[in-house]
Amino acid sequence: MEITINQGERIDNIGFGNLRLIQKPEDFCYGVDAVILADFVKAKEGDLVIDLGTGTGIIPLILTHKTKASRLYGLEVQEDSYQRGCRNIKLNELNERVCILKGNVKDIEQLGLPYFQVVVSNPPYMKDQGGLKNANEAKAIARHETLGRLEDFISCATKLLEDKGHFYMVHRPSRLVDICYLCRTHGLEPKEMRFVSPKVDKAANILLLHCVKNGGSELKVLDPLYIYNEDGTYTQEILDIYEK
Amino acid sequence: MEITINQGERIDNIGFGNLRLIQKPEDFCYGVDAVILADFVKAKEGDLVIDLGTGTGIIPLILTHKTKASRLYGLEVQEDSYQRGCRNIKLNELNERVCILKGNVKDIEQLGLPYFQVVVSNPPYMKDQGGLKNANEAKAIARHETLGRLEDFISCATKLLEDKGHFYMVHRPSRLVDICYLCRTHGLEPKEMRFVSPKVDKAANILLLHCVKNGGSELKVLDPLYIYNEDGTYTQEILDIYEK
Repeated sequence: MEITINQGERIDNIGFGNLRLIQKPEDFCYGVDAVILADFVKAKEGDLVIDLGTGTGIIPLILTHKTKASRLYGLEVQEDSYQRGCRNIKLNELNERVCILKGNVKDIEQLGLPYFQVVVSNPPYMKDQGGLKNANEAKAIARHETLGRLEDFISCATKLLEDKGHFYMVHRPSRLVDICYLCRTHGLEPKEMRFVSPKVDKAANILLLHCVKNGGSELKVLDPLYIYNEDGTYTQEILDIYEK
Repeated sequence: MEITINQGERIDNIGFGNLRLIQKPEDFCYGVDAVILADFVKAKEGDLVIDLGTGTGIIPLILTHKTKASRLYGLEVQEDSYQRGCRNIKLNELNERVCILKGNVKDIEQLGLPYFQVVVSNPPYMKDQGGLKNANEAKAIARHETLGRLEDFISCATKLLEDKGHFYMVHRPSRLVDICYLCRTHGLEPKEMRFVSPKVDKAANILLLHCVKNGGSELKVLDPLYIYNEDGTYTQEILDIYEK
């Protein structure tokens, strides 16, 4: 098998059943957000799953290990990341189960996709307010709502999901009101929310959300997840998430 | 001073600068929610404050001790609670600073009130779904959305507040999406949220919310508040809230 590794890229052994991942550190490396989101997702045999804004394909890749989902898609708008995602699937010999698609969440109808049981997303967190942005365009697109706003991701998820289908997202607590308002407006009812804090006694800085398309209005706030113990080591739950 | 104490009522010494409170235990006794909400409220000299659904007037009473607000109102729909609230103000000789009004949040225009700097509410938590309710009507009205739904409280708060005025509410996390959606719909932007859990590692069961009328859309999730230590004693923060 021949895989091209371009300048500035590296291959990491990332676990999750011996997955290997090509990343380009100067553009973007996956973080804890992607991993805890993948762990938060529930998908069963027969499910079609799609990850919106998949980058290098990290979430579909982890989901091949953590779930029995039959077929996983990743949608990516940036050419470079899309190419890297495709190579990552090939590198891990997962072409029969995972497929990376090129496209923008705003143009999802053009792709003629089937209905999904599960939609996942780790979208750009920051509002695009025309202010200071990362000079690196790829990094800026991954972090800022340059090519797709939060509402575009939510609207895309609704369009792709079957009735009562599941949407899982990771985002920042500072966008909580936007998220609740937009999800409900688009018929994705938030059913479970989990706040992730660096430590006990620290405010949450990551938000995990599970919505059900056309679900009833009652939210369950789950037990909090802490990343670090008081002594700076990872909590047992984080270790389990990385090792299972 | 002559204060009538009716059958089933009792007088408690509740602290907060030696306040005394007439309550009728079979109807409703104030709980930790009212106290942590009152502690969460910020009001300064010159502010007009109103508490929607004030019951026995517990929140305005605590706020006379915890803030320098010039004038505090409480609005109560139930005749019995309203009467008890009025007697509580008299009992504590606070008539010059606190006034209990009788009325429903849905009919707020009829009272011809001025604009407020601060609106507070500890509304009924449970949806009125025509299901099993407390046989005691007063208790049912205090706990279920029998006479006023969440939206009625939020809509009333908006009508009463001046531009950039502050709304403080305590509620259940299960209603978080309803709260975010309705507050934004009515122009009350959630700016701060604090989750209150029985203990570290337990999911939050109380939600404190601070909105600003016509505020910008960015939420701050504050450090969590825990009620009990691992050994079942109150945390220092709760002790401080009760003692300051």
